[in-house]
Amino acid sequence: MQRVLTGITTTGIPHLGNYVGAIRPAIRAAAATAAHESYFFLADYHGIIKCHDPEQIHQSTRAVAATWLACGLNPDHTVFYRQSDVPEILELNWILTCITAKGLMNRAHAYKAAVQDNLDKGEDADHQIEMGLYAYPILMSADILAFNARHVPVGRDQIQHIEMAQDIAQRFNHRFGEVFVIPEARIEEHVELLQGLDGRKMSKSYGNTIPLFQTPKQRQKSVNKIITNLKEPGEPKSPDESPLFAVYQAFATPAETQAFAAELARGMAWGEAKKQLAAKIGAELDPFTERYEHLMAHPQEIEAVLRQGADKARTEARKLLQQVREAVGIRALA
Amino acid sequence: MQRVLTGITTTGIPHLGNYVGAIRPAIRAAAATAAHESYFFLADYHGIIKCHDPEQIHQSTRAVAATWLACGLNPDHTVFYRQSDVPEILELNWILTCITAKGLMNRAHAYKAAVQDNLDKGEDADHQIEMGLYAYPILMSADILAFNARHVPVGRDQIQHIEMAQDIAQRFNHRFGEVFVIPEARIEEHVELLQGLDGRKMSKSYGNTIPLFQTPKQRQKSVNKIITNLKEPGEPKSPDESPLFAVYQAFATPAETQAFAAELARGMAWGEAKKQLAAKIGAELDPFTERYEHLMAHPQEIEAVLRQGADKARTEARKLLQQVREAVGIRALA
Repeated sequence: MQRVLTGITTTGIPHLGNYVGAIRPAIRAAAATAAHESYFFLADYHGIIKCHDPEQIHQSTRAVAATWLACGLNPDHTVFYRQSDVPEILELNWILTCITAKGLMNRAHAYKAAVQDNLDKGEDADHQIEMGLYAYPILMSADILAFNARHVPVGRDQIQHIEMAQDIAQRFNHRFGEVFVIPEARIEEHVELLQGLDGRKMSKSYGNTIPLFQTPKQRQKSVNKIITNLKEPGEPKSPDESPLFAVYQAFATPAETQAFAAELARGMAWGEAKKQLAAKIGAELDPFTERYEHLMAHPQEIEAVLRQGADKARTEARKLLQQVREAVGIRALA
Repeated sequence: MQRVLTGITTTGIPHLGNYVGAIRPAIRAAAATAAHESYFFLADYHGIIKCHDPEQIHQSTRAVAATWLACGLNPDHTVFYRQSDVPEILELNWILTCITAKGLMNRAHAYKAAVQDNLDKGEDADHQIEMGLYAYPILMSADILAFNARHVPVGRDQIQHIEMAQDIAQRFNHRFGEVFVIPEARIEEHVELLQGLDGRKMSKSYGNTIPLFQTPKQRQKSVNKIITNLKEPGEPKSPDESPLFAVYQAFATPAETQAFAAELARGMAWGEAKKQLAAKIGAELDPFTERYEHLMAHPQEIEAVLRQGADKARTEARKLLQQVREAVGIRALA
């Protein structure tokens, strides 16, 4: 059975764009097939690379975990765990550090961009760069290789990380014998990018997001902020005149979407369209919202799920680490 | 109670020079005072940085552990453990990685020497350098900080490592609140450097070593290889005419050493002097040799000692890690 591994960023509260672009497709893919095992982990040891606010790390780990569970991630049919609950990953991280060429890290996009930024400002190349930023591709490799995951769904910008994991795994296998499955990137070519309130890609950095979990009233208020033009009720409107059509489409069947376009063409008022959109989103997310609120009020339930996931994950990671340690010579003496 | 932490290299079998220069003084220092706790660890996760021969890692870890125990390290009064048995060290290693300036690693002597070596050969600066060599000062900091060790006995060449651990600890404390004791180097100014067979410092790289554990017959053979001059029996000899005097001194009381010098001055034959030297070494090491042979034949006894040590070490490391994780925001959700 092949393993698919998905890392989940734990900094920042997911919004509607994250739901449509990442959370929903990943949960659907995990539910759709019994031919592979799905591993999902909260990457909190990556989170601390850039975020030095402990309260934010803590709060957003909780919110992100609650979000995925609320949105239907089934912890009985997947392995859902917190990276920091699996110390084997950090052990593997060090063992892989010992065989990773420094030159490989020098070529990492994120590091190179930080260096370029420094040079552009007339600073030393490594000015204010911390080792976490430099070495995290090794941790990412450990995340994958600790479970011998075969497939790693990633966006185009993440392909280099998988190539590095391949390089490190091959180097280990070559030096110490075949231990690792060589992972493959499963490139997400058709990521649904949701438009934000202003029509640009929905993104926290643009300040154009719609929150994922809201009361119907709050959601209506959010949706009302989607830009439209000055066309009056009764005037025919086309789908490209407001991002609200694209958002509607992300939550509706093709038939519903067609009907929505037809109503706009027949002159539906923007206000009415926004009401229909909020209702459409609500139809999908209201049950999730209820479950999210419940989980956030009962964090012990999230914690229990994550511990159970960690138990499953550690059972696998321990087996793998046993092989890795044996291979490099870290062995019981008797 | 202040902690003193000593790391023990696990690559290579200790010789008489290691015994006199490192093992004996460390064990004596640990036994001499009840005012501090002594932690000794087998640094096997450092061993794999340079040694890629698993069998050698395994065998020499066993031999080194047996050596220290045979030479009198008391595992009931010290904490004697294998680094790889304490996964908390590797967790801390990553957390410290996230706050370590890359510029700090760029200044490490070992890395700089490797770069210089590459440049001298016309190679790229990072040619064949692996991340283990580059990042190991962080692991060394984790080794120390995981136990809030106060004193770290080191040679002059290791001072930089302790300075880096201080830097990293201060940076953490500054960013996340006081968690770490700032460690101090306890510089070993008067390391006894034993002369080898040829009079140079006894060192594996010079091929001039005397093994630590030998039968009396083997030891006599080794000692007989110490260089002397052509002076006949009966001719007066002075201590500086052969390294055997210095080796004798390392195993004798001042009174015995004086008497030995007097006998040489009275014309004692080199052959007789070598007999007396072999006997003197044997008086100290024969009981240890017996115990060493026993341990090597019963590795399960070494393993049991190390596991017990790891239990003690982990109890401490877990407490510290709990504080560290809390400080950076890696916390239970409920």
